[in-house]
Amino acid sequence: MTQAIRILGIDPGLNATGWGVIAQDGTRLSLIAHGVIKAPAKAAMARRLCFIHDAVEALLGEHGPHEAAIEDQFVANNPGSALKLGQARAAAMLAPARAGLVVGEYAPRLVKKAVVGTGGADKAQVAAMVSVLLPGAKATADDADALAIAICHANHRNSQRLAS
Amino acid sequence: MTQAIRILGIDPGLNATGWGVIAQDGTRLSLIAHGVIKAPAKAAMARRLCFIHDAVEALLGEHGPHEAAIEDQFVANNPGSALKLGQARAAAMLAPARAGLVVGEYAPRLVKKAVVGTGGADKAQVAAMVSVLLPGAKATADDADALAIAICHANHRNSQRLAS
Repeated sequence: MTQAIRILGIDPGLNATGWGVIAQDGTRLSLIAHGVIKAPAKAAMARRLCFIHDAVEALLGEHGPHEAAIEDQFVANNPGSALKLGQARAAAMLAPARAGLVVGEYAPRLVKKAVVGTGGADKAQVAAMVSVLLPGAKATADDADALAIAICHANHRNSQRLAS
Repeated sequence: MTQAIRILGIDPGLNATGWGVIAQDGTRLSLIAHGVIKAPAKAAMARRLCFIHDAVEALLGEHGPHEAAIEDQFVANNPGSALKLGQARAAAMLAPARAGLVVGEYAPRLVKKAVVGTGGADKAQVAAMVSVLLPGAKATADDADALAIAICHANHRNSQRLAS
């Protein structure tokens, strides 16, 4: 008998941070919850980062994930947007990290490959496959990516476990 | 009679985060402490960010600053380094922000102007003026910048107070 574990996937952004919690029982995945954290856009940076951090921290209490996962973002159009993205990423990641959860990091291509089968998939393909793999998910663009990251982590940790 | 307040200046970096605490009593500034936080370079990103956050949080308990200040960094050479810098900045900034402290943000040129008198000053000039303004400071490049940020905040909040 296997023990079901819960995985929190996070797709960070300063304006919209998508999140999704899935349960993994052996090879079977199911949806727990998903949503989008919208930090107040006009607040000072310190307040926006606190908002994201505290909202993710609240999700830990509400949905009790055992592990977390986030994209390992290599890509950004310019230094200015990369700086913003980096801050949102750290604010979101610090909540599970401070709580002692493993935080898996995956390249965007690996996430797409885990869900669609090819690293070059577009956002619509990812969202479509997420709703096939997790029946009941009515995810938007933001939280579909977060659920895809959680699925990628589930596959990855399963194959690590089987290999060990 | 004025009330002395303590200001924590932070110069964030993924490998080295400089910090400095100064006291401001009216227009008089004095040095409390300064140093550099060195996160383990080979740890996972989540661990490195936790290390920075927790080290800054410990400084709050140790030196009791009332306000904090950090550079508003527009500049980075490329998206990759901006992403790293953004994460370090958020990890460092979240500690005082979560504790309810004001976190002032200042452009690098404003910090240089506050300390040296010109926004085009180089690092050596900043470090030299920091040791003139704060006798006893034996700061390195990392924490001299953090002390300069704290001095900039002290000047800025004083002029705000006088104007109000």
